[in-house]
Amino acid sequence: ESTPIGYFTAANSADVVIARMEGCPDDRLKTIMSALVRHLHAAIKEVELTTEEWAAAIDFLTRTGQICSDWRQEFILLSDVLGASMLVDAINHDKGGGTTESTVLGPFHVENAPRRALGDSICLDGIGEPVLVRGRVTDEAGRPIPHALLDVWQANGDGFYDVQQQGLQPEMNLRGLFEADDEGRFWFRSIVPQYYAIPHDGPVGRLLIALGRHPYRPAHIHFIVAADGYEPVTTHIFMPGDPYLESDAVFGVKESLIATLRDLDEPAAAGAGEAPKRVVEWDFRLMRRRAAPAEPLS
Amino acid sequence: ESTPIGYFTAANSADVVIARMEGCPDDRLKTIMSALVRHLHAAIKEVELTTEEWAAAIDFLTRTGQICSDWRQEFILLSDVLGASMLVDAINHDKGGGTTESTVLGPFHVENAPRRALGDSICLDGIGEPVLVRGRVTDEAGRPIPHALLDVWQANGDGFYDVQQQGLQPEMNLRGLFEADDEGRFWFRSIVPQYYAIPHDGPVGRLLIALGRHPYRPAHIHFIVAADGYEPVTTHIFMPGDPYLESDAVFGVKESLIATLRDLDEPAAAGAGEAPKRVVEWDFRLMRRRAAPAEPLS
Ligand SMILES: [Cu+2]
Ligand SMILES: [Fe+3]
Ligand SMILES: [Fe+3]
Repeated sequence: ESTPIGYFTAANSADVVIARMEGCPDDRLKTIMSALVRHLHAAIKEVELTTEEWAAAIDFLTRTGQICSDWRQEFILLSDVLGASMLVDAINHDKGGGTTESTVLGPFHVENAPRRALGDSICLDGIGEPVLVRGRVTDEAGRPIPHALLDVWQANGDGFYDVQQQGLQPEMNLRGLFEADDEGRFWFRSIVPQYYAIPHDGPVGRLLIALGRHPYRPAHIHFIVAADGYEPVTTHIFMPGDPYLESDAVFGVKESLIATLRDLDEPAAAGAGEAPKRVVEWDFRLMRRRAAPAEPLS
Repeated sequence: ESTPIGYFTAANSADVVIARMEGCPDDRLKTIMSALVRHLHAAIKEVELTTEEWAAAIDFLTRTGQICSDWRQEFILLSDVLGASMLVDAINHDKGGGTTESTVLGPFHVENAPRRALGDSICLDGIGEPVLVRGRVTDEAGRPIPHALLDVWQANGDGFYDVQQQGLQPEMNLRGLFEADDEGRFWFRSIVPQYYAIPHDGPVGRLLIALGRHPYRPAHIHFIVAADGYEPVTTHIFMPGDPYLESDAVFGVKESLIATLRDLDEPAAAGAGEAPKRVVEWDFRLMRRRAAPAEPLS
């Protein structure tokens, strides 16, 4: 058995719990759980949590788990509204060098979106104000990266993703996979995104309201941009002038990710449907993939 | 909208999230959530949590919520094994004065256990070594408290509570509500409790194993003791010599709660079944109920 360091008291509580992990075979797990225990106990002591408040927290976590389904991840939402998701993102993507910054993936990405041709529209229901989205994928020095891949998704004019409105929206509405051309250029049609509310009919939504916070995210288009030899980037581009840019419910906004949206004076790119009168322009800069650290020789 | 204090960065993360609660109408909720955010962000930064580790944590919490049912509370178990439950207990029951100390309620208490007469046995299946449990309920000065109420429950000889083995154990096995006599005395029959494992076939059990910890609790009998004019106490009494007294999986042991267990030389109290050859002796001391703080007059 582990060395006893005395019975548990309020004064030594974290030490007693951490000492119990002495035999943990996984050093990293031990590090993480020790930090969690130390900070959790500190928080409980700081606020002198009552028994009733503890019971309310247990109940909240239980309801949060029980609302999760294949299409709903309430714990990601909780992490998002507490800023934990963006903090993990910031810690793991501290790049600098002028390359495109990352932001949260969010719960609405879908694997295997349909491949589309440059110029196609991802809007399958024709609802919303048409827009042309175009730009370039380049390296840190601004040199084009030919045939970079762009995975794009966004909410519809009513503020919902297709997976939130199955049966109502066409499948794979406002999603697409595009390949940039020989000079790293991409262009496609979509609709001007609108701000939307994160799902707020569950425990996390009620928490937001109790905290005096709103559930809105400023209008954005999601992208994952990837190319051989470069670090992929998971990010959004945000629409300028949105009323929620400074109070995104999930803290996802970075100043460097606010795009431009302007009137399109040239004739719109060919394609069916109403020709867009507006254009979002945005260039992605990717960072060269870091070489894997050399294995020690001995 | 709230005053912007700049966009979210790893450096200012907790401040940005806390500033967003500015409009929270509930001061206590704001205090608790602010402390939680500050310590949670500190923990994430301290360990530099990776995206994969974050995803594993989300998955763990989700599975923990989804295994909860009317008969299983995996989040209480998580709180217990992290020492959070005992810490909340310690903060809220820092009494001193030589009165009986409290410990965790645990997930197996049931409201409305059957009322039994002094001398009755709470063991309905006759399995285990018979034992007499007896003692007194007194005030801080050792004066008897007549007619104090004792709510008792314990696991069976195989280490399971009746609610964990519905259909296998008789309903309300090893539970009972007793009223002390005119002189605060109580006595009843039961079985000598054994150490048992907390439920460890779920996410929390797998976490314990990954941490190199065992799932055992030292043998104990649960009590809630109450009387008019006194603070009720929720506690256990532990059997002496148990191998897990110093490594209780939920940190519930206090030195002052280890009872005596000895051979019984007098003839056992009357009653059906095998006469107990051993006795657990234990006195409870209750604290006078604190007067409610006077309301300010103005
Ligand atoms: Cu802390
Ligand atoms: Fe989104
Ligand atoms: Fe127990």
